[in-house]
Amino acid sequence: MTVQNNGTAQGGVELAPDDALDMLTKASSVALERLTDFLAIPSISTDPAYHEACLDAARWSAETLRNIGFEATVEPTDGKPMVVARWRAANGGRPRPHVLFYGHYDVQPPDPLEAWSAPPFEAQIVEHPTHGKVIVARGASDDKGQVMTFIEACRAWIDSTGTLPVDVTILLEGEEESGSPSLEPFLQAHGDNLKADIALVCDTSQWDAETPAITAFLRGLAFSELTLKGPSRDLHSGIYGGPAQNPIRALGELIAGLHDDTGRITIPGFYDDVAEPSNEQREAWRALNFDGAGFLGEVGLSVPAGETDRSIVEQLWSRPTIEVNGIIGGYTGPGTKTVIPAEASAKFSFRLVPRQDPGKVIEGLHRYVAERLPADVTASFQGEGGSPAVGFDTNAPAFRATARALEAEWGKPPVIVGCGASIPIVEAFRTRLGMDALLVGFALEDDAIHSPNEKYNLSSFERGARSWVRILSALGGSSAEA
Amino acid sequence: MTVQNNGTAQGGVELAPDDALDMLTKASSVALERLTDFLAIPSISTDPAYHEACLDAARWSAETLRNIGFEATVEPTDGKPMVVARWRAANGGRPRPHVLFYGHYDVQPPDPLEAWSAPPFEAQIVEHPTHGKVIVARGASDDKGQVMTFIEACRAWIDSTGTLPVDVTILLEGEEESGSPSLEPFLQAHGDNLKADIALVCDTSQWDAETPAITAFLRGLAFSELTLKGPSRDLHSGIYGGPAQNPIRALGELIAGLHDDTGRITIPGFYDDVAEPSNEQREAWRALNFDGAGFLGEVGLSVPAGETDRSIVEQLWSRPTIEVNGIIGGYTGPGTKTVIPAEASAKFSFRLVPRQDPGKVIEGLHRYVAERLPADVTASFQGEGGSPAVGFDTNAPAFRATARALEAEWGKPPVIVGCGASIPIVEAFRTRLGMDALLVGFALEDDAIHSPNEKYNLSSFERGARSWVRILSALGGSSAEA
Repeated sequence: MTVQNNGTAQGGVELAPDDALDMLTKASSVALERLTDFLAIPSISTDPAYHEACLDAARWSAETLRNIGFEATVEPTDGKPMVVARWRAANGGRPRPHVLFYGHYDVQPPDPLEAWSAPPFEAQIVEHPTHGKVIVARGASDDKGQVMTFIEACRAWIDSTGTLPVDVTILLEGEEESGSPSLEPFLQAHGDNLKADIALVCDTSQWDAETPAITAFLRGLAFSELTLKGPSRDLHSGIYGGPAQNPIRALGELIAGLHDDTGRITIPGFYDDVAEPSNEQREAWRALNFDGAGFLGEVGLSVPAGETDRSIVEQLWSRPTIEVNGIIGGYTGPGTKTVIPAEASAKFSFRLVPRQDPGKVIEGLHRYVAERLPADVTASFQGEGGSPAVGFDTNAPAFRATARALEAEWGKPPVIVGCGASIPIVEAFRTRLGMDALLVGFALEDDAIHSPNEKYNLSSFERGARSWVRILSALGGSSAEA
Repeated sequence: MTVQNNGTAQGGVELAPDDALDMLTKASSVALERLTDFLAIPSISTDPAYHEACLDAARWSAETLRNIGFEATVEPTDGKPMVVARWRAANGGRPRPHVLFYGHYDVQPPDPLEAWSAPPFEAQIVEHPTHGKVIVARGASDDKGQVMTFIEACRAWIDSTGTLPVDVTILLEGEEESGSPSLEPFLQAHGDNLKADIALVCDTSQWDAETPAITAFLRGLAFSELTLKGPSRDLHSGIYGGPAQNPIRALGELIAGLHDDTGRITIPGFYDDVAEPSNEQREAWRALNFDGAGFLGEVGLSVPAGETDRSIVEQLWSRPTIEVNGIIGGYTGPGTKTVIPAEASAKFSFRLVPRQDPGKVIEGLHRYVAERLPADVTASFQGEGGSPAVGFDTNAPAFRATARALEAEWGKPPVIVGCGASIPIVEAFRTRLGMDALLVGFALEDDAIHSPNEKYNLSSFERGARSWVRILSALGGSSAEA
């Protein structure tokens, strides 16, 4: 091994062990064999017929980690088990940095099977038209391939240096693709054993094939269901049509009024706590040349429907929204029924940005409805809740160290991206364990996760693992030769 | 008998046989016994358990009509049978006026039984706080009591004069309370035997206990179901919320835009063919002092929601409407699902006034939607149809003769009223038999039809029958002493 000093490269890049980096490049075929073995286990968590396969995937993961030198156990839950693995250095009792890595060993169902060009659990290496070699299988990208980038990085560190630069706990879940019902209870019961300085989550995307990314903004959520009641019973539209108030019409008017002509939300006080992105941030996002046409085109759309004075990236990463997620009222069966219904209801949800309080936002909705409610219509709300947005401190030492490590591997700084949605595991780590997360992923948008012919670029696999070697170094403050 | 001449009283009221009128007043207790027998038959057409009772009611009606001198048969259908009865004068081959009377022998279910003060099929004569004596039973008003006003009138005419002033066909249906599935096929098969100069329908209301009414305007109907499609699939509102078009929002905006601030419908060309009521007509309606507060209050409303510059009566009888009868889109199950749905749909129906063409109105809706549809949303329509409004010529001789006959009985002219809804039998007579109808009813709004403790005023029963004696005279152009 060639570790040269034990200090942090001040103001520079913390150096990772060259041997470890080399190993990942040279031994990539062996690493691919291990990934292929992992991918061969059809660990479809949502389908009870594959319960045993999920147990196999958990046992395979634990065994693989034990082979590297981790203490690894398969911990039962009410659903699929958790894999918990630990690597602790003998450090003379002195505390070392400690990271918790999170990933999942379960996969989406492969349906429709006939759309696959090869059996989904028999990984194929094929030449991709633009990405070079890729591995095709269910789970190749989401999340087995990504999990293995981290495990291979640990293996390379340990194999080349005999140690890891930080204490590492690994938590692999088996229900990520089926709603994670066991996760919260497990964190509640075992949180003390899992809590680390920071969580590393490898389940997001790079910016593009040549550019890494760290996800630093996650929008929050607030939700509410509104029921409007008008007449005391369903009315015959012939007898009452005209003078009788129709709650569907009232609901339509409330929905229509939620946005002004510029797409701005009209709820009183809605933007009070919304911070504008800095000009610097805006400029950085502009420089990304985000492919808005491609983003919308993939789902059959072409014209951004949000605030007219904001780019798509701004809309998604820095602006709150309200959506109607569902609506129902009156007669919805086949044919015609000339009824003026007694009630109608709609489910609303908000995406929030940092500093917005979900409770205050919901109060704003109540106020909006109360102010606009027509005569003879009453409103009631139910099923309300939410969680605030997450904005990680991009100036925190761990964040900056990770960014530098990624830059060292990729030759350019990572793009700091937002995510329009909350990621439940991040929320759970914050709520249950009081722990921030670093979201560094090596998937690509065109990996076709959850779709037929899911693939993972071999370059993402190798450079992902190399990135983790460097990130672990950076987080540990250890260094190796350049 | 005291018939004095055989000509029409020119310019005046055609006189009815005094004996017949007297008989109805004097023999009212016997007539009440017959009605009580009819009411004792639980002919609930919607409940298969009462099928035999429906047959009983049909047989009872035919037998009663035969006793008076009609040729009466019970005609099978795929559902409940029709009662068809005929009375034809030997008139030396000369054609005589011919009327088709329509009523129904079936009744609504009496539920909730516990809300009745006496068994619903054991008619009770009780003293009503404002109406004097009333008969309480299911069907007392709707429609057995009303049917019997006509049958008793025929009986009195024949008993006192040996004849009827017009040829009469009576059609009694047994499925009016369950959607009349057999009516159209029956009219199609037997129309030639039923067609008369005019139909008399006795299933509507008086204006009030002292004032008769003729229903002369029935709104038409047009209907359409609109489906909006946005994204090519349901989207995650976190990932797409903001830039992605939400079809529920688009639908809300379309619904909200259908009416302007004055409640006027904004569909292009919608009012082109709508005739304004004459000032005279408006004045007559104003003079009715229609109890709008009571009308709305009964269904939990207080503020008329229609065109702000129109009275409730105008809105109901002379103005077209559009209503959303049903709406559905996105997630409508329990709890929350943060989806931006791929589609949303709504059912619309219009109430039309005379001269509006249902097809043209639906085209207008298509145009309205096309003009306002936001980018990336497509609209499709299905399940469309309709029927035009009916406005009877209030100057037609039969209409004027009937009005004069009612005035002779009640001491004041009938109120010419509209009905917000179409009445299927009227539409069927027009479409299938090319025959107009005179809608003269002797029910009252407070008869509690379809509700517990349905009642019928004995005064309505007696004066209804007396009214028919006079109307038959008037339509026959025959006269009797005053």
